[in-house]
Amino acid sequence: MNEHLEPHGGNIYRLMEECNFSTDSIIDFSASINPLGVPESVKEKINENIRHLCHYPDPYVKQLTLELAGRHNIYPNYIMCGNGSTELIYLIARAIKPERVLITAPAFSEYENACSISLKSEVISQKLKPEDNFDISIDEFIDGMKKISYSFNSMAFTSKAFTSMAFLCNPNNPTGRLIKKSEVLRIADAAKQLKCYLVVDEAFIDFAPQESVAYEVQKNPYLIVLRSMTKFYALSGLRIGYGVFPCDVIEILKKHKEPWTVNSAAQIAGLTALNDDEYINQTFELMKNEKKALENGFKLLGISYVPSFANFYLIRHGNAKEIISGLRNRGILVRDCSNFKGLDSSYMRVAVKSNKDNMRLLKEMSDLL
Amino acid sequence: MNEHLEPHGGNIYRLMEECNFSTDSIIDFSASINPLGVPESVKEKINENIRHLCHYPDPYVKQLTLELAGRHNIYPNYIMCGNGSTELIYLIARAIKPERVLITAPAFSEYENACSISLKSEVISQKLKPEDNFDISIDEFIDGMKKISYSFNSMAFTSKAFTSMAFLCNPNNPTGRLIKKSEVLRIADAAKQLKCYLVVDEAFIDFAPQESVAYEVQKNPYLIVLRSMTKFYALSGLRIGYGVFPCDVIEILKKHKEPWTVNSAAQIAGLTALNDDEYINQTFELMKNEKKALENGFKLLGISYVPSFANFYLIRHGNAKEIISGLRNRGILVRDCSNFKGLDSSYMRVAVKSNKDNMRLLKEMSDLL
Repeated sequence: MNEHLEPHGGNIYRLMEECNFSTDSIIDFSASINPLGVPESVKEKINENIRHLCHYPDPYVKQLTLELAGRHNIYPNYIMCGNGSTELIYLIARAIKPERVLITAPAFSEYENACSISLKSEVISQKLKPEDNFDISIDEFIDGMKKISYSFNSMAFTSKAFTSMAFLCNPNNPTGRLIKKSEVLRIADAAKQLKCYLVVDEAFIDFAPQESVAYEVQKNPYLIVLRSMTKFYALSGLRIGYGVFPCDVIEILKKHKEPWTVNSAAQIAGLTALNDDEYINQTFELMKNEKKALENGFKLLGISYVPSFANFYLIRHGNAKEIISGLRNRGILVRDCSNFKGLDSSYMRVAVKSNKDNMRLLKEMSDLL
Repeated sequence: MNEHLEPHGGNIYRLMEECNFSTDSIIDFSASINPLGVPESVKEKINENIRHLCHYPDPYVKQLTLELAGRHNIYPNYIMCGNGSTELIYLIARAIKPERVLITAPAFSEYENACSISLKSEVISQKLKPEDNFDISIDEFIDGMKKISYSFNSMAFTSKAFTSMAFLCNPNNPTGRLIKKSEVLRIADAAKQLKCYLVVDEAFIDFAPQESVAYEVQKNPYLIVLRSMTKFYALSGLRIGYGVFPCDVIEILKKHKEPWTVNSAAQIAGLTALNDDEYINQTFELMKNEKKALENGFKLLGISYVPSFANFYLIRHGNAKEIISGLRNRGILVRDCSNFKGLDSSYMRVAVKSNKDNMRLLKEMSDLL
């Protein structure tokens, strides 16, 4: 086990402490956050409103919810905001209490944590294969949902239904692989038939917004869509995410929701960021250029990477351990993926950052290889 | 049921929407927040660090935890920070899963919510009496803990132990009544004997810090102390609280804790506020003067009040409903206490605010009476 291994990326604080780096001297490729940083519009708005932070947050997050409803063309009663989408992952697990859960391997580790801790859900993994670029086989996933939804007892010719839930991250973290909307809807239709809740985590779908199934939640009582605003809008420190839920589900969630979880600064930031078209356009432009630059660099260095639809790459190298450690000593964090189910210690995840930072990463990697 | 009744004070957003008031034109007496507002030192520090809000928060809240440990003279491994102390109330309930719970009536409603939702704990109320100024009878409270800890079956001469938990808010919300440290420790000793968890919520103890039992947690594996930083330091919008827990309890809590619940702005604000001695001294000075002014006003108006050790008063008037509604129409929010167990619709809670605001409240009340 790697001594520096963290359950997640983005813990710059440990490196700051251990190596005496300042926040500004660390380059963090381990968390997949927009390198443009906190939008200027958000900084200004928080500054303007800083004295209002003495008031409790709006417990119903009404303004942001209405804005999101308008953008998705969904009734606001389908939407609930959270202290990051992480709060909502845990809330869903606690409220719906799935007895059996299907999760791809690899996937964001919090799905399994949320379902395992205290709930003791039975978790079934669907292994994604490196030779398929970790693409999900839709048919296998549907088969997996069937298995968790019914238990067939061939002796007695009876079947028992379980409260079941499947998690799908699209684009997937840490692979960056995207499932087309039509295929996600095929899975969602099957979920509806099976009465199996399908949670589609679209934390990184802002990079491929046309494939979102958020709107479809209104037509499917078993479809849940989670969205994050911390990655695309670089608001990770403030925590803001939301979900689109069927009405029956939202009623159950409300009973389990703790008050005031979404702080006022996050509510202001979310509302402001959504309306910052310049920031959004700049982000797409930067991603287009920098993804090309990184891919070219990886090819030159002989580092294999999984083609990505998000703002990060899953990369692989036999000397990953040495690379991670060497970069760390130079103030550069990348995500050690050895604790992702379905991956091994040769995998790393790196975010797409600014040209300057990306070039630095490639140069340091080149030195280390 | 009053049509404006909210589960908690401090929802200025509904009044803003319904009556078209701006944030600045509402005077909120319904939430008990320091009228000095967000400390200047905190505003500056957030401003300086606003661009760092792109990074994930430190999941372990290390710097603030170390600062708190130093101040309480407690090892840091006894301390856990939360997204307001509300997160910790829910976390305790989920992690310890008390089968039977003792709560005073009235008390902060989230204790019962946290234990009832999904856990189905059996909640027993200890009614506090108006004729005693709602002071707690220590002996009755200890008797209550005995009742929830054991179930005696006289027929079989056997007894069964339950996982039990008692909540004590000191000073109590919404009464402002204080229990002396020696008396709290008498309850805590009994709790230890009974193996009943005692949660002492010290959300308002900054106004009587000498009565805190935070330090004593190290000597009692059944004592839990919760602290809020949102009231005294006016950081309600950012959400920051902490708890002092026995080591065994903290290990259980860690298993149930969700990652990144305490946002970065809250961590910065908490650390900065604790060191703002000027703000702290000004707060005590203001409270001393303004509590006198409010008490004199209440007496003149014939409004009865419970003598308070916190920054709010529980007041009573036969025409409370009309007063609340009349004040509301003038942009002034007070806390309708009719949904507190053990109180009726004649009770209101008002925060101690600035001299100007307090005088305005008394004047408007005088007009309405």
